[in-house]
Amino acid sequence: MIRVLGIHASPRKYGNSFKLLWIALRAAENEGAETEIIHLYDYNIGPCFACYSDYYLNCRYPKERKECPLSGVDGFGEVAEKILASDAVVFSTPVYWFMASGVLKNLFDRMTSLENMIYHVGRSLLDGKVAGVIAVGEEAGAAMALSWALLTLVNMGFHIPAWGTTYYHGKGDVLEDKQAVSDAYNLGLNIVRATKRLRGSNEAPWYRFIGEDEYESLVEEARKVAEKNKAEQRRERPWLK
Amino acid sequence: MIRVLGIHASPRKYGNSFKLLWIALRAAENEGAETEIIHLYDYNIGPCFACYSDYYLNCRYPKERKECPLSGVDGFGEVAEKILASDAVVFSTPVYWFMASGVLKNLFDRMTSLENMIYHVGRSLLDGKVAGVIAVGEEAGAAMALSWALLTLVNMGFHIPAWGTTYYHGKGDVLEDKQAVSDAYNLGLNIVRATKRLRGSNEAPWYRFIGEDEYESLVEEARKVAEKNKAEQRRERPWLK
Amino acid sequence: MIRVLGIHASPRKYGNSFKLLWIALRAAENEGAETEIIHLYDYNIGPCFACYSDYYLNCRYPKERKECPLSGVDGFGEVAEKILASDAVVFSTPVYWFMASGVLKNLFDRMTSLENMIYHVGRSLLDGKVAGVIAVGEEAGAAMALSWALLTLVNMGFHIPAWGTTYYHGKGDVLEDKQAVSDAYNLGLNIVRATKRLRGSNEAPWYRFIGEDEYESLVEEARKVAEKNKAEQRRERPWLK
Amino acid sequence: MIRVLGIHASPRKYGNSFKLLWIALRAAENEGAETEIIHLYDYNIGPCFACYSDYYLNCRYPKERKECPLSGVDGFGEVAEKILASDAVVFSTPVYWFMASGVLKNLFDRMTSLENMIYHVGRSLLDGKVAGVIAVGEEAGAAMALSWALLTLVNMGFHIPAWGTTYYHGKGDVLEDKQAVSDAYNLGLNIVRATKRLRGSNEAPWYRFIGEDEYESLVEEARKVAEKNKAEQRRERPWLK
Repeated sequence: MIRVLGIHASPRKYGNSFKLLWIALRAAENEGAETEIIHLYDYNIGPCFACYSDYYLNCRYPKERKECPLSGVDGFGEVAEKILASDAVVFSTPVYWFMASGVLKNLFDRMTSLENMIYHVGRSLLDGKVAGVIAVGEEAGAAMALSWALLTLVNMGFHIPAWGTTYYHGKGDVLEDKQAVSDAYNLGLNIVRATKRLRGSNEAPWYRFIGEDEYESLVEEARKVAEKNKAEQRRERPWLK
Repeated sequence: MIRVLGIHASPRKYGNSFKLLWIALRAAENEGAETEIIHLYDYNIGPCFACYSDYYLNCRYPKERKECPLSGVDGFGEVAEKILASDAVVFSTPVYWFMASGVLKNLFDRMTSLENMIYHVGRSLLDGKVAGVIAVGEEAGAAMALSWALLTLVNMGFHIPAWGTTYYHGKGDVLEDKQAVSDAYNLGLNIVRATKRLRGSNEAPWYRFIGEDEYESLVEEARKVAEKNKAEQRRERPWLK
Repeated sequence: MIRVLGIHASPRKYGNSFKLLWIALRAAENEGAETEIIHLYDYNIGPCFACYSDYYLNCRYPKERKECPLSGVDGFGEVAEKILASDAVVFSTPVYWFMASGVLKNLFDRMTSLENMIYHVGRSLLDGKVAGVIAVGEEAGAAMALSWALLTLVNMGFHIPAWGTTYYHGKGDVLEDKQAVSDAYNLGLNIVRATKRLRGSNEAPWYRFIGEDEYESLVEEARKVAEKNKAEQRRERPWLK
Repeated sequence: MIRVLGIHASPRKYGNSFKLLWIALRAAENEGAETEIIHLYDYNIGPCFACYSDYYLNCRYPKERKECPLSGVDGFGEVAEKILASDAVVFSTPVYWFMASGVLKNLFDRMTSLENMIYHVGRSLLDGKVAGVIAVGEEAGAAMALSWALLTLVNMGFHIPAWGTTYYHGKGDVLEDKQAVSDAYNLGLNIVRATKRLRGSNEAPWYRFIGEDEYESLVEEARKVAEKNKAEQRRERPWLK
């Protein structure tokens, strides 16, 4: 069973970056994977202290050994365990100032402790996993966020499948944009297919369009989940108008 | 009197990003400015909640009105007040995964509340200030960090002077790299000169090389300050080897 | 008299990148500047041979001395003379594959010969000029094109004024997007105002919105110019449907 | 037999971008592939005319049908045929102004005609191929060039294997930098391994260090090939000092 983790890097659990991530993971399920979405804002991810800049062996994934000064102090360990237990990860970020959110940047900075294990145990703990990336925002910057994420992930040891990125920079509800939904769906499919093939199986083509019926039921379901999240989250954010 | 704020976005107060920032601000002083360096890691800068995505007027600089849910909760307000009180700001960031540190990303995300005042009071609170950016790291990514920062700053209302960026991606102590030190020095000069001229005075050319004597005494002084910071900070970071 | 050159890097003289450039230069005229738009595709700009990588003094602006192997062979010299005769330059590029067009990249690569004069005569021939950048395309990438251009221009010696970039990534005619038109107009104003101030005069604020009347007459005029260009250019491009 | 094409986007056939590409393709051969290097400057690659912006079906790969106005006029067709006949492509570019060379940008812009076939025949002609990217230059910008290339390639239909990028931004001969040579070697291995696995075979791990002996003989050979190229090319470039 292939496990795909969705990491949502927006504070709004009902926005467009959530919706596209949900569509992508649903496609992954349709392709046979087991999926989970986590919201990064539910974890407290502190900034990296760059210990390796003093000495490169300072940085290691702490789990039990606690070398990292932040080990056990914030929520990174929980997220890291989920990543390590996954075969593939789909990151979905809002675009703030032409780039991924600060929370996703902090997560990537902290993931250095997983990659840096190449110096301790001979391989990156992320080596051979598969990744996809989604970026959403009305303003420009999706490409900058996606390209930065791709370069980083490839250099941590992730594979990126064809059509492994999706974005939306239109106004309004992304679920009304057929191209974006279709792209997210294909991203989810390709993540799973690449994971399977990189492990030896050999299956279908790399891109397919989803039919009207499938599209409409998916979109409807995504909308309901987002609305439920919004209703719940509004109670936690009373300052919002 | 022109006030130049240096914002240092590395956890290491003695590293190359600090040293170049120190050189730049020293040049600003030589040009007549009053300067201050703050270390962003000394403040707790939480991630933006993107309230404006629900409704664009949700986001405003809170100071006394406290609309921002993070107002008073973290250290953003203190940093914001220092920025608002400055005529120019020099940002210096380490390069983590080909980009600025997560802490600087969080700061920029939060500065939306200053820029978004354009919808409340007719102008960005940052409009007309001058900025420069420094990026340092052995690995690639300085250009990506700098270009992202420039685009963001220009769209918050900052002016960028000619030669307003500097980077270093060599190994070892940047103070031994004459080009980088000279670039940082010129950055500091140009920040002040642009600030003056944009306000009406008219002075010297936009780039000059610094002579041997000036160079050497500066470098020596920068080294001492960095070493002092390192000794102090090592006591706070006992996990480092 | 301030001279502002508009460099249009799209093959389509009637598209959105042209329209926004036209608006920006019209604003520059309203601010008292003399303007000219050139279409880069009308010049044959060959790729840089990177002679400086063999020896850094190999590269110099050839004009009469003809050191550059491409001197007189392609259209770079004509464009370079126009740049050198200008106080400010506004570059407008379509977004192809998340980045500026190949023609603009070739132009920037060749402008190395102007910047590299710092080693021959002590200053970049571009030092102290002012620049703005416009990027247009339905797909993502405007931010990547703009940020790359800003970093390059600042390191050639250009100043970038506040709000010195504009983009459009919507569908259809940009002249129907009030925000984009207003941004382009302000870009043109700021280019001229920064040029004046950096030379010693002291004038009005850095951003203003344009009123309905001014907006509408401008847009109408821009549309007519674009349509005229389109009619002319269609005759040269009979393969288009 | 897996065919790997190396596309070299520098005018200097003997420089560091060539050397790393040579190393990567040699690794691909050691992994069982058949390889070829072409120098993009040997082909005349004109800029894209963006015909699809007038009507999206305007753009198609012309080969025999000649719809593209540049068909047969420049060297794109020859390069395109080589790409289409390959299973994987390694692009190696110098870094000019923080980005890939203008020639590589022109090639990517023109490859739109291969990708855009998705609207004509239901799939991108590049779908399912594997790509790697190398960027070399003393100045900053390798990360910006690599990240832009990755995003573009993934959106044309290429897969990117783990550790599928390499760069060098040090001074001097890259063949003296063990890390860079090792990275390029691994890139070549991973390109071939990913190609095999994506087609169904299942082999060895994704990263290995090369031993001293293998390293030294490779480096020696790369140096000889580069020197031979340099001697030949110097005769064609008499203006160089």
